[in-house]
Amino acid sequence: MQLISIIPGFQPMTDRRLLDKAAVLTPALVYTEHPVPVRCALNGEEMTFEALASRPLSRGDQAVLDFGHHLVGRVTLSLDCAGSHQDAPAFFRLDMAEIASELDEDAEAYDGWLSRSWIQQEKLHVDLLPARISLPRRYAFRYLRLTVLDTSPKYQLLLKEASCVSESSADPEALPERHFADSRLNSIYEASLRTLKDCSQQVLEDGPKRDRRLWLGDLRLQALTSYVSYRSYDLIKRCLYLFAGSRFPDGRMSANVFTDAEPEADDTYLMDYALMFPLALNEYLEETGDHEALGDLLEPALEQVEYVLRHGMTADRTVAPEQASSGFIDWSDGLDRQASLQGVLICALDAASSLCARAGDEQRRCRYAELAQSMRDAARTEFWSDERGLCVSGGQVSVHSQVWMTLADVMTGETAARAMDAALAAPDAPPMGSPYMHHYYVMALLRAGRREQALDHLRSYWGGMLDAGGDTFWECWVPDEPRTSPYGGMIVNSFCHAWSCTPAYILTKFFLTT
Amino acid sequence: MQLISIIPGFQPMTDRRLLDKAAVLTPALVYTEHPVPVRCALNGEEMTFEALASRPLSRGDQAVLDFGHHLVGRVTLSLDCAGSHQDAPAFFRLDMAEIASELDEDAEAYDGWLSRSWIQQEKLHVDLLPARISLPRRYAFRYLRLTVLDTSPKYQLLLKEASCVSESSADPEALPERHFADSRLNSIYEASLRTLKDCSQQVLEDGPKRDRRLWLGDLRLQALTSYVSYRSYDLIKRCLYLFAGSRFPDGRMSANVFTDAEPEADDTYLMDYALMFPLALNEYLEETGDHEALGDLLEPALEQVEYVLRHGMTADRTVAPEQASSGFIDWSDGLDRQASLQGVLICALDAASSLCARAGDEQRRCRYAELAQSMRDAARTEFWSDERGLCVSGGQVSVHSQVWMTLADVMTGETAARAMDAALAAPDAPPMGSPYMHHYYVMALLRAGRREQALDHLRSYWGGMLDAGGDTFWECWVPDEPRTSPYGGMIVNSFCHAWSCTPAYILTKFFLTT
Repeated sequence: MQLISIIPGFQPMTDRRLLDKAAVLTPALVYTEHPVPVRCALNGEEMTFEALASRPLSRGDQAVLDFGHHLVGRVTLSLDCAGSHQDAPAFFRLDMAEIASELDEDAEAYDGWLSRSWIQQEKLHVDLLPARISLPRRYAFRYLRLTVLDTSPKYQLLLKEASCVSESSADPEALPERHFADSRLNSIYEASLRTLKDCSQQVLEDGPKRDRRLWLGDLRLQALTSYVSYRSYDLIKRCLYLFAGSRFPDGRMSANVFTDAEPEADDTYLMDYALMFPLALNEYLEETGDHEALGDLLEPALEQVEYVLRHGMTADRTVAPEQASSGFIDWSDGLDRQASLQGVLICALDAASSLCARAGDEQRRCRYAELAQSMRDAARTEFWSDERGLCVSGGQVSVHSQVWMTLADVMTGETAARAMDAALAAPDAPPMGSPYMHHYYVMALLRAGRREQALDHLRSYWGGMLDAGGDTFWECWVPDEPRTSPYGGMIVNSFCHAWSCTPAYILTKFFLTT
Repeated sequence: MQLISIIPGFQPMTDRRLLDKAAVLTPALVYTEHPVPVRCALNGEEMTFEALASRPLSRGDQAVLDFGHHLVGRVTLSLDCAGSHQDAPAFFRLDMAEIASELDEDAEAYDGWLSRSWIQQEKLHVDLLPARISLPRRYAFRYLRLTVLDTSPKYQLLLKEASCVSESSADPEALPERHFADSRLNSIYEASLRTLKDCSQQVLEDGPKRDRRLWLGDLRLQALTSYVSYRSYDLIKRCLYLFAGSRFPDGRMSANVFTDAEPEADDTYLMDYALMFPLALNEYLEETGDHEALGDLLEPALEQVEYVLRHGMTADRTVAPEQASSGFIDWSDGLDRQASLQGVLICALDAASSLCARAGDEQRRCRYAELAQSMRDAARTEFWSDERGLCVSGGQVSVHSQVWMTLADVMTGETAARAMDAALAAPDAPPMGSPYMHHYYVMALLRAGRREQALDHLRSYWGGMLDAGGDTFWECWVPDEPRTSPYGGMIVNSFCHAWSCTPAYILTKFFLTT
């Protein structure tokens, strides 16, 4: 995910004690060697890597190497020359791509609003062959294309080795073996876990290609998926501490934290992301019973709720319409976010109540429970339309509003399910724009008792990414517009993205057969 | 210089003993720090580097740094960021240029026959700022341009340091102080020595930008200039041993030797370049009296002459017309090279005779002296036209033929000088195409007694390169066509080139005032 806000002179508030604990929890990376690509093509002709390695390459030749699966790691190339003598440097371009169709994009033509520095392309000169070159940067890729920009009439390039050492902090030993109803679901499950693994680095990155950093909305979903798979408890704990340890000066949590150097909150606040913290903490404690984390993180978690209660409400106990622009909910330009944020807030109040119960703080437990209940009531008054049988937010019908009203138990059962169906069928309703929203839609269907519909949607939406060439799940997938990019060019899209890793969680929790 | 021939399966003959001696003579490099550019401009606005270092740079910004003089060396950049946070890699292009107008060339548009890999351009990604980056490659440059390809809306790039450590094996301590008639000549002298210094690496390279290797015709001129300046005797000896140590299987010397890895003769033979070896060896011995070199290199030197005598002559003691295509003489497509090669051969025979005298081999001394004389006679018969007062080669009048007939004493004094004047004025005569040829033209004028004309030509031809922005002398300079390239694009021309370093030699030998 990438949202850009700039607050001049922004200086986050730092809690050294929490950041030190986060530092201690930094996981070791597990390195895996991939000594040879599994499929290769030279100028479109398929061949083994062994065959490719003996083919002299001249200006314009293109070798495409497929490492078989999405990887995050470092590349080593061994190069030699054929011909009479290397009388000029070798000059070539490398394009690393997470999916094959990314290679069809023209890097030079990209003119979107996101930095073109994310495009995984390098141009290299090698003065003296033979040479073994370990590229210093980390890439997220399955495909590597080498295009010879020039050799000379006297010599050609030989690509003798192309290997990758992949890295991830997810421990594959921790994976239980699981099987689902059919091979399609098994494939979706595997791609989901591969997505989580490749995002699991020294923090839970949103995408290993881009932005490679910790986002709060993504973290919650990664953590849920991890609890049924890699069980990276320390890593999740570290990420929770990072959000608590570097915040806005007024105590709010940033939507994301920079972690490459000294951890530092970004100056981007998203109300719904901040409200995910009590949910994520409560889920972590449910899994681990970690008293230290409860003690350290309870107050930062409650502050996220309190801030919204102080600054974001109307007298009628609804989220103030003017606050709706500080929410994310989904990539959707025209979306009215008021009802959705109301739903998120109710869920956060329930989590806050539960956290207080864990801490034995009965007074605050009651307070948050009562607030949640009163906001449910307010939501029914403010958003529910008996006439239309669904919730309306700012005059707008959207599936988003129904989803969050359902997840917040404002509506339940078939009432909720029919509201979602109706909103999806409404001609002017803004469509769902992100896998993040699709996740919550599936969760709302399940909550409303629509198991088959939920599974069908999971099959078709996440399965669609596999059909379109993914073996991890993507930042952006709009089935009717497969080349959609929120950034003005799909060459900068991330095709292994935290917030779409949840099918393994959903399948394991609700559809496990063996 | 760059000529491309390809002999399939070419395997040079190696003399390990000679190459081992060459290896022992490998010079140490002298490193010099250039901690800061002397002039800078940001998007065309001139400023100090200190001012530039505080200016945040965004997409499209261009900083041009001038290090004051041509350098050969390695670049270090220190980069930092301004703004709220570096949320994407920094992406920038570096263009290194020997002269300012090289920066106006479009690297992408280059489509010449020489490898585009020689273009000194890099595109770099820096994932994490601040960073201090030492580029691994060696560049030949005076100007460095940094173009920001992208940062992000959240941050800008700061260029805090740009330094260079230059390298050369020429010892500036060895330089005598000299002054000539005027400041113009002093400037020409200095540029000449700078050219030699920057070409003096672990071999006497033809050009430090390109091809960075040892060429025999260039070596002779570098050696002559070195004898009056840096006196790099060991380096010159090393280069002579490299040519003798890796040759064609039939004993011929290659026009150039690759020296980056194990020394290896290129598969390019140029008759006049091979014939320069006895001249270069004789001049080296004149300077040094080095008995070891005489013992080791006499026979390889004489073999160059003997090969031509066996394979390259007509019964009338002229170079066979069909051999003329194996000569270089000058960059000149239509040039008839027969008379010029005859002149080179006569000079080589004189040198061979002198080498035999040094070795006390009276029999061969006489033989070569007599051969030289008989070939002078043959040249007068074959090429001289009484009617036109000049030499004609294959029906063609060229200044090249007059120059080499003069240097070989086929013509002398005013006869020679008038022949050169006439050839230059002849409407169809091919023009001189290289500084290499211009050097021999000046030498022929001096030999014919035309001191003023020689000095005027040196002033105007080499001075013209200074006026056009050089502070070293160039591979290619055609005053009427300043953007000429023999390669299809001046961006790959070398602007610090061995064969144009001779003004210091000519000035010191013939025009020294103090």
